[in-house]
Amino acid sequence: MLFRQMYDNETSTYTYLIADANTKEAALVDPVIEQVDRDLKLIQELGLTLRYCLETHIHADHITGTGKLREITGCDGIVPENARVACANRSIKDGEILKLGEIEIKTIATLGHTDSHNSYLIDRDRVLTGDSLLIRGCGRTDFQSGDPGLMFDHVTQKLFTLPDETLVYPGHDYRGNQVSTIGEEKLHNPRFVGKDRSSFIEQMNNLNLPDPKKIAEAVPANQQCGNTPIMAEV
Amino acid sequence: MLFRQMYDNETSTYTYLIADANTKEAALVDPVIEQVDRDLKLIQELGLTLRYCLETHIHADHITGTGKLREITGCDGIVPENARVACANRSIKDGEILKLGEIEIKTIATLGHTDSHNSYLIDRDRVLTGDSLLIRGCGRTDFQSGDPGLMFDHVTQKLFTLPDETLVYPGHDYRGNQVSTIGEEKLHNPRFVGKDRSSFIEQMNNLNLPDPKKIAEAVPANQQCGNTPIMAEV
Repeated sequence: MLFRQMYDNETSTYTYLIADANTKEAALVDPVIEQVDRDLKLIQELGLTLRYCLETHIHADHITGTGKLREITGCDGIVPENARVACANRSIKDGEILKLGEIEIKTIATLGHTDSHNSYLIDRDRVLTGDSLLIRGCGRTDFQSGDPGLMFDHVTQKLFTLPDETLVYPGHDYRGNQVSTIGEEKLHNPRFVGKDRSSFIEQMNNLNLPDPKKIAEAVPANQQCGNTPIMAEV
Repeated sequence: MLFRQMYDNETSTYTYLIADANTKEAALVDPVIEQVDRDLKLIQELGLTLRYCLETHIHADHITGTGKLREITGCDGIVPENARVACANRSIKDGEILKLGEIEIKTIATLGHTDSHNSYLIDRDRVLTGDSLLIRGCGRTDFQSGDPGLMFDHVTQKLFTLPDETLVYPGHDYRGNQVSTIGEEKLHNPRFVGKDRSSFIEQMNNLNLPDPKKIAEAVPANQQCGNTPIMAEV
């Protein structure tokens, strides 16, 4: 397997490139519109064919690169169930497995940051957690139908029950960390350590964060696959 | 082995944490002074003992965290041969091997960016290249006794002769890339592809880059291990 984590400096967003080394089929998870040229160049240099662009969720802080990538490569744009993105090629739901050559990408629905959100478990040993579980943190739950109770349930019951050595690759990091493990987060994530469901909810309801800078443009644009013409209906 | 790449957003610098999973001995390569708290917290959470802070070279764009880390942890500060850092605990030269538990860190002197610069080959499968070889680029050679001819010789004769699958971890990246391979760089690095020694030198002598913002403070501070009191003589 070929696996690359890439970073968008302006929005601190991680994009992931996953490819089967034999079949050369590739997927991008959470591409960023400003980085499409970088991502395409790498895909071309590595001799890969982009099959899928997967979203963990409808982002509020950046515009997806999926529409532009789909226009250029003909790949499928795939969003979580209930994401209300009419232009996506298809949606993918909890438990569903997407094959990429020999690689298995298993969807684990982890709601709470938004009301449609997937984590993706790659070959059982690494999980892309989007904005649910972050390194020593978690996504906020105060907009886009966020729900701190669901966040607590899905992180503790679906992610923290994965093997301790599972690598955690988040959708963002604001401190320069790139990867963690489930074991580390269970021990050291201050949002969860020593918290029960109700104290977690209380904490999340009192973060008083400002809105993301791009929310007003990013959410509607992402519901249009990054503002490109509608190509298919789910 | 435990291996973590961490990022400093302000200067686009990568710091590396390497540790033996059994003995828990750890080394940091190219720590950044503003990130010392982050790095120490991770070391503590992972139950590691910091034995070494290694520099690839005397940086012109950021101040090293080594002095501060040494003051707090008692680790050794190690610099390349001829680095003129009187406060370092020791220097390490081409071909020398540093053991970290079962891990072998082999020094490959790769001059050119500055006149004292080491790459570090970790257990033969990944190489930390500092500011010599970057992803699809290389360090500049126009200050601190830089030498484009030496850069060409050492990258092409010492790094490009490593096995193609060797992972390349640079000291910086400005486009959000984190890792490459020797094979990829031989094929796709525009600074080297199709260049002989003299056309490489000509290219490097005509980059006309502005000085790094922090050069006036960073170089003298780094010659003092990041401005902390002198603790040992090499």
